Amino acid sequence: MKPTNNKGFASDNWSGVSPEVMRALAAVNVAHHPAYGENDPLMEEVQELFREHFGPDATTYFVYNGTAANVLSVQQLLKSWQAVVTPHSAHLNEDEAGAPEKFTGGKLLTVHCPDGKIRPEQVEPFLNSIGFQHHVQPRLISISQVTELGTIYSADEIKALADFAHANNMYLHMDGARIANAAVAACLSFRQMVTDTGVDVLSFGGTKNGLMFGEAVVFLKPGLADGFEYSRKQGMQLASKMRFIAAQFRAYLQEDLWKRNASNANAMARLLGSKLGTIPGIRLSRPVEANGVFAIIPPEIIPLLRQQYFFHVWNENISEVRLMCSFDTTIEDVEGFVALANSLIP
Amino acid sequence: MKPTNNKGFASDNWSGVSPEVMRALAAVNVAHHPAYGENDPLMEEVQELFREHFGPDATTYFVYNGTAANVLSVQQLLKSWQAVVTPHSAHLNEDEAGAPEKFTGGKLLTVHCPDGKIRPEQVEPFLNSIGFQHHVQPRLISISQVTELGTIYSADEIKALADFAHANNMYLHMDGARIANAAVAACLSFRQMVTDTGVDVLSFGGTKNGLMFGEAVVFLKPGLADGFEYSRKQGMQLASKMRFIAAQFRAYLQEDLWKRNASNANAMARLLGSKLGTIPGIRLSRPVEANGVFAIIPPEIIPLLRQQYFFHVWNENISEVRLMCSFDTTIEDVEGFVALANSLIP
Amino acid sequence: MKPTNNKGFASDNWSGVSPEVMRALAAVNVAHHPAYGENDPLMEEVQELFREHFGPDATTYFVYNGTAANVLSVQQLLKSWQAVVTPHSAHLNEDEAGAPEKFTGGKLLTVHCPDGKIRPEQVEPFLNSIGFQHHVQPRLISISQVTELGTIYSADEIKALADFAHANNMYLHMDGARIANAAVAACLSFRQMVTDTGVDVLSFGGTKNGLMFGEAVVFLKPGLADGFEYSRKQGMQLASKMRFIAAQFRAYLQEDLWKRNASNANAMARLLGSKLGTIPGIRLSRPVEANGVFAIIPPEIIPLLRQQYFFHVWNENISEVRLMCSFDTTIEDVEGFVALANSLIP
Amino acid sequence: MKPTNNKGFASDNWSGVSPEVMRALAAVNVAHHPAYGENDPLMEEVQELFREHFGPDATTYFVYNGTAANVLSVQQLLKSWQAVVTPHSAHLNEDEAGAPEKFTGGKLLTVHCPDGKIRPEQVEPFLNSIGFQHHVQPRLISISQVTELGTIYSADEIKALADFAHANNMYLHMDGARIANAAVAACLSFRQMVTDTGVDVLSFGGTKNGLMFGEAVVFLKPGLADGFEYSRKQGMQLASKMRFIAAQFRAYLQEDLWKRNASNANAMARLLGSKLGTIPGIRLSRPVEANGVFAIIPPEIIPLLRQQYFFHVWNENISEVRLMCSFDTTIEDVEGFVALANSLIP
Repeated sequence: MKPTNNKGFASDNWSGVSPEVMRALAAVNVAHHPAYGENDPLMEEVQELFREHFGPDATTYFVYNGTAANVLSVQQLLKSWQAVVTPHSAHLNEDEAGAPEKFTGGKLLTVHCPDGKIRPEQVEPFLNSIGFQHHVQPRLISISQVTELGTIYSADEIKALADFAHANNMYLHMDGARIANAAVAACLSFRQMVTDTGVDVLSFGGTKNGLMFGEAVVFLKPGLADGFEYSRKQGMQLASKMRFIAAQFRAYLQEDLWKRNASNANAMARLLGSKLGTIPGIRLSRPVEANGVFAIIPPEIIPLLRQQYFFHVWNENISEVRLMCSFDTTIEDVEGFVALANSLIP
Repeated sequence: MKPTNNKGFASDNWSGVSPEVMRALAAVNVAHHPAYGENDPLMEEVQELFREHFGPDATTYFVYNGTAANVLSVQQLLKSWQAVVTPHSAHLNEDEAGAPEKFTGGKLLTVHCPDGKIRPEQVEPFLNSIGFQHHVQPRLISISQVTELGTIYSADEIKALADFAHANNMYLHMDGARIANAAVAACLSFRQMVTDTGVDVLSFGGTKNGLMFGEAVVFLKPGLADGFEYSRKQGMQLASKMRFIAAQFRAYLQEDLWKRNASNANAMARLLGSKLGTIPGIRLSRPVEANGVFAIIPPEIIPLLRQQYFFHVWNENISEVRLMCSFDTTIEDVEGFVALANSLIP
Repeated sequence: MKPTNNKGFASDNWSGVSPEVMRALAAVNVAHHPAYGENDPLMEEVQELFREHFGPDATTYFVYNGTAANVLSVQQLLKSWQAVVTPHSAHLNEDEAGAPEKFTGGKLLTVHCPDGKIRPEQVEPFLNSIGFQHHVQPRLISISQVTELGTIYSADEIKALADFAHANNMYLHMDGARIANAAVAACLSFRQMVTDTGVDVLSFGGTKNGLMFGEAVVFLKPGLADGFEYSRKQGMQLASKMRFIAAQFRAYLQEDLWKRNASNANAMARLLGSKLGTIPGIRLSRPVEANGVFAIIPPEIIPLLRQQYFFHVWNENISEVRLMCSFDTTIEDVEGFVALANSLIP
Repeated sequence: MKPTNNKGFASDNWSGVSPEVMRALAAVNVAHHPAYGENDPLMEEVQELFREHFGPDATTYFVYNGTAANVLSVQQLLKSWQAVVTPHSAHLNEDEAGAPEKFTGGKLLTVHCPDGKIRPEQVEPFLNSIGFQHHVQPRLISISQVTELGTIYSADEIKALADFAHANNMYLHMDGARIANAAVAACLSFRQMVTDTGVDVLSFGGTKNGLMFGEAVVFLKPGLADGFEYSRKQGMQLASKMRFIAAQFRAYLQEDLWKRNASNANAMARLLGSKLGTIPGIRLSRPVEANGVFAIIPPEIIPLLRQQYFFHVWNENISEVRLMCSFDTTIEDVEGFVALANSLIP
């Protein structure tokens, strides 16, 4: 269906760019600047910022988007006959059009996770394949934080997965397309949520939280990043005018922009969830843990709602919709939508 | 060597972003907007602009950078056992860290071309492999316009290659990272240079001519683009906030920005070339046809020049340097460099 | 566990080579012979034999093994962003160590099929992805005949899948590693089972039924095989001394060897199943439809049985074992095993 | 051109299988035997045989053919952004239809070597790319022994390449499709020619010297083979009835068959070369170092010669032909060919 109105809750990447980021882009657009991040003091400055947020062993590379961050992370740590274990609902599995298979040559081993979160005991059966030459060899667990179903892993849950992974000669990757929302929701720093729990490599996203483009691959431990600059280039992900990615992340991390933006998105989702939940005939289908609201809405009013506030139907069979809040979602947006829903309910 | 001064002639991607482009980015940063270019009126508008410039059969897709545009163009038209014939000096061959091989699974068949330009008679020997199951099967000729050596194919030369390709069941791809500079230099429209000569698919670049990021893959003939949206996504090249690429290209094409920017870069290169050529002890090593100047400079003054104007040494063995002019290169830059060179010559 | 005795029911590829095949190998080992099947009258003769068995449109290529036949079949018909829909239990998915992903760059979409057989309605949900650029595009259904669980698709079931596939712009591939066993069991010719039901491409196996090595990829319709000779070579599957594969298949097809061998294997499995089923404490877990017997056997006697007759445990959790019969399995083998089982049952 | 007579000098893989090998195949065709080489005493015996020939650190895996041995060797030691440096004439580059690029995702950096042999100084220029993220990173030198041009590297030449490779963090791979011919010609054991010179991994061929199928990948140093069993399976190269490869190599190595066969082929080539060289109007174009003879023959008599003795034209432009001798080439073959040539010369 073609949106008739872009305002709404379609996705956090329907929103634009934070004013702070636009200013940062303009500010760095001065004179000439080394291309490709080579010998670039700005890159060194941003590397240092990431180390402040993730600890002294963090090594950071910029790529263009989240799919690339995920795929290149996996390829860095695995041989093609090794496999990723991940929830079936993972972006890596469902929404990357086969990029992981294409670029890594490897297989994803998926597990059905009703809340989007995988547990160590779901990984365990795959260990039976270890040493059997006919099977791919499990080598990495990939989790999304926030998950595609709006849920959040606790630090303890992440640590349990990391410990399990490391005890079995595996790595833990985190797809952090919405990691700012998770960190804000959990009241944790990135270091507490990622480094201290034992994650090996992180796709650190910002585009869904107010950046224009660019994603960071953050390796949390020494040695893991060796040669990544070559696989980034071979992965068609080396930006020539790198300063325009670096400057965005500098603004994002330096000025707590990530926190302000994610806080608003989360708060608006909580507000939207709490108000929707009180409307007779509408029911929240999942807990609101970050910036997404999942609700069962009577199918007959969905088209009418979408005329004024665009959003995606998540599961047509049960009339479940997904409403994403963004850094720029306003109380007016929420209240307008709720009022409209109220008025349409028969 | 680490640049001590970014000003200079290192590369046209050391320059920043045209003010017009920065304004376009700010202007499109309003409200929400469909992600991924789906159901996006802006995308339709820009598609139409490309058709105005390239003819009614042009179909355009945005990717992040030139490497991706080249690689995905090739992969769209070839099976993995088919091969690209291209000059050895091609960016596709030399400067993409094996991305074509990795992503297409195919082989590049390269030819040594002293001026960076391949001729049909250099492709001909590869036709002997056709039908021989032990050999890759030549299926596409790829040329760069401007070439990596600063030279330009004439429309007749392109047409001869296209005709040769089509007569032998092959395609012609053009890497147009600097196509604006070529079009300006040849006083041709894009349509005259690309569509009318018979090119099948074009990597249309703008980043080297004042854009921030993004490159267009333009298919010139009906049917060639079928399914490209999937290979773009699988190629990790689908931008979520697509409007920020589309808006740049709208500004670039609509307001003749491409022409103004390239005209300046070319003019500055001509000026630089003509002045350098008169300095005793300095010799132009190649004709100045677009925005690059190649010169033999006494090796002992190169480090001193680079302290104030950074540039790359092209061929250390013969002390040949490459000086790239950009949309923002000024007469002062050129005259300052020339004066410095003059003063340093013993 | 290391087999202490090779005799037994481990797999039909633990058996050796039919005497007829050994004779055929010796007979063709005369003088020099064109390599690679090029300009080779023997290849033409065998092509004709395949056409006799599969109809006039069949085009046949030899590769080394079943994994290659499966993977190259898929790659021939799909682009990397297109996907295979197949039972989770398929050899293609479970037992090829990621070869399909590695070589085709594509994704397998798997469905849990308790009896190893997929139905059209299980493929249907994947059609929702068609046209959605973030998802792989389903393009081929792959079935195994006999399935990995010892079951057989009826001709009607195959036709229903083929019709469904073709109605939805998809292909049907059959992994026929044990197709001779299926044909014998169903009392159908290959043509009736494969060509007439609408299969597009077949991996035609013989190694599990008395050949030494080699597998045939049979394209059943005109045009599907175009260029396959190149992808076979690129797939590292072009045998230089091709005559030694061709001669095996000539013997296999010409002299009804496939039928005699499979008939014995099936008959022995029926006998084994019927006898095992009468032993108290042992229960057949699946119907015996071809040459495999699946049975629940008390776990404490399994090691004792395996000391004299090696076989594989299929599902340790429920103490289910798999007993494969082969072209050379004898009544004595079956009776000996049954007698031993009887004697060991407490 | 279609051969009218298979007898001749087309290639050493137009010959059949040594009687000793046929006997070994028959002898091993007894009873059941573990599939895939797993827990297979025969495999252990053959491993030990390879250690006798190549030293105690040799680890051996069987694959189906030489292309696979080459490609999987390279893939085992390289990441996709690393490159192979090899003569342009290498089988790996010219005659594998892009298999190396397809399966490893990497690039071949080729050097023109008039005698088919690469020297360290030809590799040296590629070292300039090390550390430059836009270029593939050279990581392995691949040589053919015997080369595709019939020449042989001396042990000193191999050692110089190995030393150069190791001094520059590279590996040395040897494509030994005709290594027996080289060893016999040089009067060296395999250990002297391969292990002692520092080769890291060897494609050990036998098919061109009397085997039916199968090739061995021999890793000469500890640690290099880790995980190779998985990449072999993923590379579609794991034979189920492995005993029939193992038995061939046992016969080949145990009974000095490799030496007897290669000695005959080399002797016949020497004889052929010496006799051809005396015919007026015919000229040897390369030295006869192993089992190949390259000669310039008047073009008008080539078709007449080929009617009775098939062979390949190597370089049509200069009327150069390649005449390969085999384990079963006889003095009568040679004398008959020479007499015919003599009679046809005008």
